[in-house]
Amino acid sequence: MTGLQEAQRDQDDKLHEECGVFGIFGHPDSAALTVLGLHALQHRGQEAAGIVTFDDGHFMSERHPGLVGDIFGGRNADRVKNLKGAYAIGHNRYSTAGGSAVRNIQPMFADLIGGGLALAHNGNLTNARALREELVGEGRIFQSTSDTEVIIHLAARSLYRPIVEKLVDALKKVKGAYSLVALTSKKLIGVRDPWGVRPLVLGKLDNSYILASETCALDIIGADFVRDIEPGEVVVITKEGIESFRPFAQQPNRFCVFEYIYFSRPDSVVEGRNVYEHRKLTGAELAREAPADADMVIPVPDSSIPAAIGFANEAKLPFELGIIRNHYVGRTFIEPSDGIRNFSVKRKHNPNRATLEGKRVILVDDSIVRGTTSKKIVQMVRDAGATEVHFRVASPPTAHSCFYGVDTPNTDDLMAHKMDVEQMRRLIGADSLAFISMDGMYRAMGHAKRNAAAPQFCDACFSGAYPIELTDITGASRSSQLSFLADAAE
Amino acid sequence: MTGLQEAQRDQDDKLHEECGVFGIFGHPDSAALTVLGLHALQHRGQEAAGIVTFDDGHFMSERHPGLVGDIFGGRNADRVKNLKGAYAIGHNRYSTAGGSAVRNIQPMFADLIGGGLALAHNGNLTNARALREELVGEGRIFQSTSDTEVIIHLAARSLYRPIVEKLVDALKKVKGAYSLVALTSKKLIGVRDPWGVRPLVLGKLDNSYILASETCALDIIGADFVRDIEPGEVVVITKEGIESFRPFAQQPNRFCVFEYIYFSRPDSVVEGRNVYEHRKLTGAELAREAPADADMVIPVPDSSIPAAIGFANEAKLPFELGIIRNHYVGRTFIEPSDGIRNFSVKRKHNPNRATLEGKRVILVDDSIVRGTTSKKIVQMVRDAGATEVHFRVASPPTAHSCFYGVDTPNTDDLMAHKMDVEQMRRLIGADSLAFISMDGMYRAMGHAKRNAAAPQFCDACFSGAYPIELTDITGASRSSQLSFLADAAE
Amino acid sequence: MTGLQEAQRDQDDKLHEECGVFGIFGHPDSAALTVLGLHALQHRGQEAAGIVTFDDGHFMSERHPGLVGDIFGGRNADRVKNLKGAYAIGHNRYSTAGGSAVRNIQPMFADLIGGGLALAHNGNLTNARALREELVGEGRIFQSTSDTEVIIHLAARSLYRPIVEKLVDALKKVKGAYSLVALTSKKLIGVRDPWGVRPLVLGKLDNSYILASETCALDIIGADFVRDIEPGEVVVITKEGIESFRPFAQQPNRFCVFEYIYFSRPDSVVEGRNVYEHRKLTGAELAREAPADADMVIPVPDSSIPAAIGFANEAKLPFELGIIRNHYVGRTFIEPSDGIRNFSVKRKHNPNRATLEGKRVILVDDSIVRGTTSKKIVQMVRDAGATEVHFRVASPPTAHSCFYGVDTPNTDDLMAHKMDVEQMRRLIGADSLAFISMDGMYRAMGHAKRNAAAPQFCDACFSGAYPIELTDITGASRSSQLSFLADAAE
Amino acid sequence: MTGLQEAQRDQDDKLHEECGVFGIFGHPDSAALTVLGLHALQHRGQEAAGIVTFDDGHFMSERHPGLVGDIFGGRNADRVKNLKGAYAIGHNRYSTAGGSAVRNIQPMFADLIGGGLALAHNGNLTNARALREELVGEGRIFQSTSDTEVIIHLAARSLYRPIVEKLVDALKKVKGAYSLVALTSKKLIGVRDPWGVRPLVLGKLDNSYILASETCALDIIGADFVRDIEPGEVVVITKEGIESFRPFAQQPNRFCVFEYIYFSRPDSVVEGRNVYEHRKLTGAELAREAPADADMVIPVPDSSIPAAIGFANEAKLPFELGIIRNHYVGRTFIEPSDGIRNFSVKRKHNPNRATLEGKRVILVDDSIVRGTTSKKIVQMVRDAGATEVHFRVASPPTAHSCFYGVDTPNTDDLMAHKMDVEQMRRLIGADSLAFISMDGMYRAMGHAKRNAAAPQFCDACFSGAYPIELTDITGASRSSQLSFLADAAE
Repeated sequence: MTGLQEAQRDQDDKLHEECGVFGIFGHPDSAALTVLGLHALQHRGQEAAGIVTFDDGHFMSERHPGLVGDIFGGRNADRVKNLKGAYAIGHNRYSTAGGSAVRNIQPMFADLIGGGLALAHNGNLTNARALREELVGEGRIFQSTSDTEVIIHLAARSLYRPIVEKLVDALKKVKGAYSLVALTSKKLIGVRDPWGVRPLVLGKLDNSYILASETCALDIIGADFVRDIEPGEVVVITKEGIESFRPFAQQPNRFCVFEYIYFSRPDSVVEGRNVYEHRKLTGAELAREAPADADMVIPVPDSSIPAAIGFANEAKLPFELGIIRNHYVGRTFIEPSDGIRNFSVKRKHNPNRATLEGKRVILVDDSIVRGTTSKKIVQMVRDAGATEVHFRVASPPTAHSCFYGVDTPNTDDLMAHKMDVEQMRRLIGADSLAFISMDGMYRAMGHAKRNAAAPQFCDACFSGAYPIELTDITGASRSSQLSFLADAAE
Repeated sequence: MTGLQEAQRDQDDKLHEECGVFGIFGHPDSAALTVLGLHALQHRGQEAAGIVTFDDGHFMSERHPGLVGDIFGGRNADRVKNLKGAYAIGHNRYSTAGGSAVRNIQPMFADLIGGGLALAHNGNLTNARALREELVGEGRIFQSTSDTEVIIHLAARSLYRPIVEKLVDALKKVKGAYSLVALTSKKLIGVRDPWGVRPLVLGKLDNSYILASETCALDIIGADFVRDIEPGEVVVITKEGIESFRPFAQQPNRFCVFEYIYFSRPDSVVEGRNVYEHRKLTGAELAREAPADADMVIPVPDSSIPAAIGFANEAKLPFELGIIRNHYVGRTFIEPSDGIRNFSVKRKHNPNRATLEGKRVILVDDSIVRGTTSKKIVQMVRDAGATEVHFRVASPPTAHSCFYGVDTPNTDDLMAHKMDVEQMRRLIGADSLAFISMDGMYRAMGHAKRNAAAPQFCDACFSGAYPIELTDITGASRSSQLSFLADAAE
Repeated sequence: MTGLQEAQRDQDDKLHEECGVFGIFGHPDSAALTVLGLHALQHRGQEAAGIVTFDDGHFMSERHPGLVGDIFGGRNADRVKNLKGAYAIGHNRYSTAGGSAVRNIQPMFADLIGGGLALAHNGNLTNARALREELVGEGRIFQSTSDTEVIIHLAARSLYRPIVEKLVDALKKVKGAYSLVALTSKKLIGVRDPWGVRPLVLGKLDNSYILASETCALDIIGADFVRDIEPGEVVVITKEGIESFRPFAQQPNRFCVFEYIYFSRPDSVVEGRNVYEHRKLTGAELAREAPADADMVIPVPDSSIPAAIGFANEAKLPFELGIIRNHYVGRTFIEPSDGIRNFSVKRKHNPNRATLEGKRVILVDDSIVRGTTSKKIVQMVRDAGATEVHFRVASPPTAHSCFYGVDTPNTDDLMAHKMDVEQMRRLIGADSLAFISMDGMYRAMGHAKRNAAAPQFCDACFSGAYPIELTDITGASRSSQLSFLADAAE
Repeated sequence: MTGLQEAQRDQDDKLHEECGVFGIFGHPDSAALTVLGLHALQHRGQEAAGIVTFDDGHFMSERHPGLVGDIFGGRNADRVKNLKGAYAIGHNRYSTAGGSAVRNIQPMFADLIGGGLALAHNGNLTNARALREELVGEGRIFQSTSDTEVIIHLAARSLYRPIVEKLVDALKKVKGAYSLVALTSKKLIGVRDPWGVRPLVLGKLDNSYILASETCALDIIGADFVRDIEPGEVVVITKEGIESFRPFAQQPNRFCVFEYIYFSRPDSVVEGRNVYEHRKLTGAELAREAPADADMVIPVPDSSIPAAIGFANEAKLPFELGIIRNHYVGRTFIEPSDGIRNFSVKRKHNPNRATLEGKRVILVDDSIVRGTTSKKIVQMVRDAGATEVHFRVASPPTAHSCFYGVDTPNTDDLMAHKMDVEQMRRLIGADSLAFISMDGMYRAMGHAKRNAAAPQFCDACFSGAYPIELTDITGASRSSQLSFLADAAE
């Protein structure tokens, strides 16, 4: 985990999306447009990024740690020029423990019988360990610790032809959440898992088709949104056009509700809903469910601004920026030896005393994970003179880990896993604390309530109802530890 | 100019403060606290930063290009450990043309008769060239192209003792705007020029005094705000305590009004006014002066949010985030060869179609410099479906260059220098355009109107009324060009 | 190819060994000793180096481009500390076209059924392409373009157990030259190919066994030389001691004669002969075969000094340093636009006019490859005033490419491939030119003459008699090009 | 001190020249030729290098730590392109304690009245501290700790005109050893101090004059040697040609004898003598003075090879490379925790057992400073089987520090300062030890003997007879320590 990641985790106490993907077919500037698309998707992963293109019989790759703007901008702009060709796929990666090695940066690539396959993946497989053990048992060699390599090995082993069929054959064997883009020498392929947990959209720019995790990546290049790729759908884009297959057994849709709450950018349209507008609706629902007698509504910036606007409008209270965010975050500093109260939070947030002093404040956040940051922010706001602090959270208590592609702390570190609301209130030191109810969250989505038998979304992090089997977690197959190579400094 | 600077200049079309300063006396963690202070002042200068400390008979220095978090954080944390001692001063630098050499990074230092002097300066001298020529004429050697070195040479040449008197002697010879912090082996010194153009505040943390450009640098370390250093005041902090002198001829106060409009952080309290609250007042005044029939008020993020909130509240219109900002800006990318409409702006801003479509929009910005970005943003908002775009600016037209420490384009590049409001409206493509009036700006400050005979602030960038003589600009003394050394890569 | 490599290739016109290997078992400082061993073997490969150790259930790796002293010395010394454990193998790599990617740096590693295998290889396989196509045909995925990965895949696929048997099974399928060291969680393994083309020696330091390409790597750590590993021998070192196997069909010994001529360090003892003493004998034989009437004998420094001493002693002529070498070679410089005669050679060599002026000179070199450098050196020596230049070469004409682990130019670039001696003499501009005869070279080795039916050494680069089948070169199996991923900047 | 320097000091136990200088006037490729000249002079200083050129009204500079080939070669070749113009001076710097900051890298530059002056200096001033205190007393500001800046300040203060007269005025005030090159906007200037301690030669390439520390820098660019600059001579090169002045009081010549013994490259011609030939003569004289009954003569490589050849020829004994040097030295490694005998020496030297075993050996070195390395080498040679080791040194015992531009250990660390020859013999463990006598050294120079009243050379390091007053060393003026700024990482 890089210093930047540490710093962010330390400061924002959020769940983090692990990846963003982008692909484009048939555009002379495919690499430059992929850079822009990945830049627009930067919020989905900041540890590393990579792009693979194909031109004149060869695949070309640039995969590096860092932010897209640093990897492909400024003095590194030559890397974009190296990536020739009209087809490209790209990937933003969020860090996961032990996996920051260059060899884990996507897209991954392999030469299969019949040609090369590059693959970029957003999500997480729940039977990857079991499959990996089976593949190693056949004498197959892994170079990374990434799930994506499992899919590539399964494709390489497949007897089907052509490569797109090998990929489908591979995906039939995996379980879990995945939205992926793949590139062969002739095709751009996009796939969403049968439950449709992670997003993937189709766009068009002139005659070029585009696949991306979110619509904001279409906006930045001026492309038109065509439609969402559907759960279980495989789209294959060639010079002849676009084709669609549904090779998997159908499953109930379980789109990740957290994409609305925090992951997606507010300007994205996700499965038909604008994220910003949705967050305002959630804030309003929260205001109805859990009003408070106060002088103003204040967001924990920046992600909670829409929910706070919605809350303030509904509550007919002023919306104020009572906490100012420093956008130059950077790496962790040395902590002064005699300590500074709320040191780590202050690098990013400062309360505005002139606005807060003597006021009763409603603090709106989109979610709470560990509660450590919330506690510091409540204290900061009190220190700045607020007389009352009412904390409102625009999502239900996060009580369960995610195994579908989101970086979650261990269950034991989730504040809501071990405490009830009153305990949590005391922990964070607020005068009152309320989360939106599960049904309230669904109401803000336009549903009357959560359908307990077949929930309209994947809400496992709130409900513990995991739609896709967790083979590696629950299975007895966990055999001997593999003797992984630890590349200390690669 | 670094890629980051280029990118920002390209995208935000703002005036930029050239520096932030910080000093602390008598704290065992002086360097670590200075790092935090500079981090809080990062918005005042992003090109470079430096810190000088004194300990055990020696001054120590770390001066590097980059952001504070990169220079002193993460793997560079050892630099902080190298900076031993209980006294420190630090400086953030904004780039100016041709001056990015390491030797121009502040604080500057020299051995004088009687001991060392380190100096960090926010502002700009208006007779620096004339003084420099005089000093070179005496066989004195310059190592940088910085104004600050002129002050140091004048102090070195001075026959007064001790060093603080040398510094005062030097400052009596310079003209221009300066808020500076200086360090000797025994003293921390703070000075504001007699007009008080640039800010400087005094704070206290336990038994340590602190000097800083803005109060947000006190907040981050938990220090208390004591008071503003007054125009023309010299404060000298020693182990014995703090003393104050007024060695300069008194001048009318002319604090920079742009500190309120854009430079200072919204959570800072500047000369007794909270910046955030002031910006809301300005937005409200603007709403009264120049209302528009519209459906919503939208800020050009992020700096214009307070003015937009003030405008929306006054106008009783919804405040909405109609433009989403991407905070991962980074370096300039390669532009796709066939172009993307509004390419450079889109890296930072994306309009939210769901919010804007079919709506009449009031767009609030705090200032316009060249107008190039405004034009792109208006077009972006229209492309996203807005039916009307009414542009409102929370400052008067910027028609004159600043010579007091702000990075301004040439006068000819200032949109307001050559156009009237209707011409500007047509240039940026808005349905209507209004700037707050000069008197409106003063009213938001709590004055009845601008005092034309003795304006309450320095408003030269709007009015052209320069309070301090511009010797180097207007003087006939501009003799032969010096044969400056161009350190291509130092 | 790095700048350093370019510079060297440009200047020295030598064949280059592609690798050096080192392994140690059972020493608490295994990584530090491997660093020293690789440093002593630096002449065998300067592009990159890597070390793998095993400790506490995990393999650890550090593989980087550059010289050993830069990779593991000075500020990078922490890398050595990261490499914990009592077993280690290491590798120095010489660049080959297109293969400078980090993923090609050895030792390579894979998790096999039963545990991990790390492998470092000196040599070249002659059926690697054919095997690679077969393995890809089975759906196996390659990550590098290195021969070594072919061996690892063959081992991974093998059904034998334990891992050492998998490795032997793999090696039974490969053709070519290889001296390799391998590490499992319990064993250090050393193997030489059945013809014994490349060297590998066994040493001992206290209770630790060592494997190394040359004895100079034993000397640097104060280890004792035990014996050469024999052609076709597999040694397996465990806590229980050392065992030896001979699993391959026996072949006639064909040790690379060029190891004596140029590759090995003069202080190494190679297959029972000290290299320095052998080179002197060769120089003496050359003096007997091709004397010249001259005033002094001058080596082309540094590698030809021993042969020149031997020649001078035999010819009873003074040995003089008439050409001075600049050891600070570094990267290629910009050539002045109006040119400097013999520019590229002069960066490394300068003739000593005071010694050469008016003298008849015998210039001794150990080998000539392209002839370009020889031509420049002859001209340099003439320019410095030599009246006659007699060029003597301590090896026969290099007329054929090597396919057994040596970086050779294309056959067409070998001066001796297309010219007879008189043509070559005219090309390089010498007054006379002589190469040692093939039989003379064998006489210096202590043989009466070359045994044409079964040559005592591999002398293919002189004779064209390749002892090991060149499957990939001559075979018809060269099917379609694989779509290798070109990692431009990894 | 860099790792490279540490490593070298650790291993070679030699005195080290502190600098090399180069200048060229009137050549379109002046920067590229200066790079080559500095490369040829790399042995005189390896810590840093810099070049200043003048073109079109501006001076340009590139000054960086590292080797010339790294600073200006390979991917840094653009730096050469930045250095436009037909005039250039350059400098190689050897490290001295505390002085590795970038601001100490030469050439130094200042704007004086009348134009710029760039200066590069080989030597050391003996009254620099006294002058510096005087200049600081006048309020002048120093940016470096270098002697060179003292000269520049004196020139800047001078009332003479033009700049060349200012420089002469300055030099009249300094004491010590200096050979320097200077550049103004119109002139290239070369000066040697009145005693002529350090070398400086004049060369010509087409119509361009060149100044350089040694003739090897002329050879590399194909320039002709014209003559030595004479002691006390000032040469001024302009478009009109070359002029010569002798502004200083005449002094007896005292050229540094150590330039012959070790500093200069063997292919240089220094004050009329070829260094290589001279070293052979010294070796022969040593053989006559101190013969030994032995089987062979072995140099401590590489610098002692010429002396050993001279010794062997005179003694009619075989010359052999009994110690092999590893030229890939690089940075210091981690020492294995349980130690390796003669670890630090073995990184650079390995004895050749096959040559040494059972032999009586004469080991020839050019000089001994501390004796630590000699001891290790004697032991190494014994360990390799030599039955007797007779150590012969081609210079007298080094018993006194140098204050004229050579990096010498403290007097107490000089082996010869505190021991007689027998004590030294026991320390280094040789069977016999002999140094050439003082008169023997002068005989090898062609003198009958040393003229004690007026020695023909500066031999202060052997004799303690310092020709130039040591003001800073012996004077009582050493007042308070200046408060130098320690730029930890600049």
